[in-house]
Amino acid sequence: MSGSFTQVGEQAWQWLEAAAHYSETDDPAREGVTRRCATPEHHALLEALRDWMEALGMTVRLDNGANLIGRHASPHPEARTLLLGSHQDTVPHGGKYDGIMGVLLPLALVKYLKDNAITLPFHLDVVAFSDEEGTRFSSTLLGSKVLAGTFDAAMLETTDDEGISLGQALEAFGCRPERIAEDAYRPEEVIAFLETHIEQGPQLEREALPVGVVSAITGIERHRLTVLGRAGHAGTVPMAMRQDALVGAAEVIRLVDTLCRETEDLVGVVGKIENAPNGVNVIPQTTTLSIELRSPKDEIRRRAREQLMAQIEDSLTRRGLTFDAQLTYEQAAVACSAWLKGELEDSVRESGITPRVLFSGAGHDGLAMQSLCDIGMLFLRCAGGVSHHPDEAIQPEDLTAAVQVLVTTCRNLARREAAA
Amino acid sequence: MSGSFTQVGEQAWQWLEAAAHYSETDDPAREGVTRRCATPEHHALLEALRDWMEALGMTVRLDNGANLIGRHASPHPEARTLLLGSHQDTVPHGGKYDGIMGVLLPLALVKYLKDNAITLPFHLDVVAFSDEEGTRFSSTLLGSKVLAGTFDAAMLETTDDEGISLGQALEAFGCRPERIAEDAYRPEEVIAFLETHIEQGPQLEREALPVGVVSAITGIERHRLTVLGRAGHAGTVPMAMRQDALVGAAEVIRLVDTLCRETEDLVGVVGKIENAPNGVNVIPQTTTLSIELRSPKDEIRRRAREQLMAQIEDSLTRRGLTFDAQLTYEQAAVACSAWLKGELEDSVRESGITPRVLFSGAGHDGLAMQSLCDIGMLFLRCAGGVSHHPDEAIQPEDLTAAVQVLVTTCRNLARREAAA
Repeated sequence: MSGSFTQVGEQAWQWLEAAAHYSETDDPAREGVTRRCATPEHHALLEALRDWMEALGMTVRLDNGANLIGRHASPHPEARTLLLGSHQDTVPHGGKYDGIMGVLLPLALVKYLKDNAITLPFHLDVVAFSDEEGTRFSSTLLGSKVLAGTFDAAMLETTDDEGISLGQALEAFGCRPERIAEDAYRPEEVIAFLETHIEQGPQLEREALPVGVVSAITGIERHRLTVLGRAGHAGTVPMAMRQDALVGAAEVIRLVDTLCRETEDLVGVVGKIENAPNGVNVIPQTTTLSIELRSPKDEIRRRAREQLMAQIEDSLTRRGLTFDAQLTYEQAAVACSAWLKGELEDSVRESGITPRVLFSGAGHDGLAMQSLCDIGMLFLRCAGGVSHHPDEAIQPEDLTAAVQVLVTTCRNLARREAAA
Repeated sequence: MSGSFTQVGEQAWQWLEAAAHYSETDDPAREGVTRRCATPEHHALLEALRDWMEALGMTVRLDNGANLIGRHASPHPEARTLLLGSHQDTVPHGGKYDGIMGVLLPLALVKYLKDNAITLPFHLDVVAFSDEEGTRFSSTLLGSKVLAGTFDAAMLETTDDEGISLGQALEAFGCRPERIAEDAYRPEEVIAFLETHIEQGPQLEREALPVGVVSAITGIERHRLTVLGRAGHAGTVPMAMRQDALVGAAEVIRLVDTLCRETEDLVGVVGKIENAPNGVNVIPQTTTLSIELRSPKDEIRRRAREQLMAQIEDSLTRRGLTFDAQLTYEQAAVACSAWLKGELEDSVRESGITPRVLFSGAGHDGLAMQSLCDIGMLFLRCAGGVSHHPDEAIQPEDLTAAVQVLVTTCRNLARREAAA
């Protein structure tokens, strides 16, 4: 069994179980995993990763953005590099797989290559990105921005809840943040960035598929919309004379839901609502909503926005209500590289699995990495589509399938790289 | 001018202006009036009322429920009594008219009778009820329950925010709460209870009428309804697989609003909403709403409730959602006495005003008094239907019209009482 896909898949499972204990929580099964950037838990995890990497013969370094990078070197020193990896950090009380699985699956890949004495015409650099979730400091994609060379030094001034700045935290972690710019990869030395991640949605599970190939990382926009009505005594103002802000807000919620259900490649939600004065016997005066729209195709999202805002204006005006709307966040979609997506589809097929292409509704390190290089993503089925929660779960066999796809992809990329 | 309707109407206006300064607030125009039961402000107001009443030749007493009662005696000592009055207390930062106007208009009536040497075959007892709003202690209609003989001694144990019990507060106010039961009127000595109050709604203003006759005090029911959905990542769960609690709640809000708009003599509101986890990028898991329905006809309200609950069940089930609903409050409607309503309509007509009959969507002291005697209510127009707010406003001329209606009603009741 040594060196089989099953064996390295089981190894990945054991690493994942071990990694879950580097957490601020005592009981990962009940409280989930909480691991924030540049904390003792982060440090302890990196010590374990370093041991595992070195046991595989990899050379390991910590960069100045607190990314741990292990290299499985090609026999050809002048070779280019395939970047693999994902983030080590979690949301508070998150799961055991979101992020860290994308670090440990590539280690399983390296173990397979090593056990089977397979050499490649490119280096494999496996990265444990320091921070993607942005849980500790209010900015995301820290680690991948460092590698991509797009890290803004002003970010070093942002502070956590205790007033510790990112710069101070990195220094205490053993980094030299003033030298972060030197840690960027040069585009010419990189083949691509390939990330494995749990789907965080239910589509693969519904179709009984262990893995799927990502077409694009969604674009996102968020709005804050306040419906302005008129408060009044809920017993004495006749229905026909009411300007009930919450009735207007309910209509907005319905419009968002209906539009997203009727539009392909568009999802959206009203996740947050605040109502005032929020008394059982008072007609609501103002109701504030968040509206979020996501699509892998920016033109679909922007067309939906225009359509939605027109519908809202029409509907609220008919009810004698007015509103304020503000775009609070917008991020364009990022397409995965067509050639790498094709390679992944081929590898999935060669692994005996029906290739299913789906888009990522969540953001990932690829959003930052795409300014450095082509990106590709492989999703693994996750139970019930649940993520960011202690109940996050995967099936051990899916790790085996994923390693097989990664190995196949590396073999195919080796042919491509040799031909280049 | 002395003894004219205009003159006593102006007197009522001046009393109202003076009464507004017995308040916890410094500036009634800006901060409104705050006057809670058995406080120094309550005491100071009663001192002023006592002076005004005694100047009109009335005999004045404080009962053990902190109600101040001034009697304008009939020359016939064995006569029955017409009760008039309203509550002295306010909501926090309430207006200058809600409650106290129903105490001072009857004093203007007494002044008119005295100035014009009109005698009646019944006593007039003008009551400043101690507490109707329930602002200080969490129970309403304290004063009127004492007069009606329905006061529950257990209420004496309820405490205010500082831990002072109602019993302690009444004792400190000079009352003997253990003797409250003795303060009830006997039904056979009472003709009726007649209250004047601002409408708290916009209907009289819309129809340019100074006063209106109340048909009934609304019945009220309240529900707490929780829509149970399933949280999820707002980017990764496909629209068709979502169980979004807030989308279900929006549908409930629409159903309540539509049913109330389509049903005569029914109003209703969803005034309060709480959503969880309430994050911009999380599909809502549970959303809790208040539902309030009001109708002067209990059968309309109960039929509407059944219809609404069936519609909610149907709508949420179709969306894959479940819900918990709990009836948290129910109070039956109270009809105003038909004969007294008829007398008030006649008096309004005789005063040169089109008689308009409307129901009260708010609760009033009549809810308690109806277990003692027949009740009647006269509403005064209030600006924009606004109440429970510093902006509460009336027109001085409407006080004059109201006094004229009260005088005419007393004259007509005198004929009726003489014939009895």
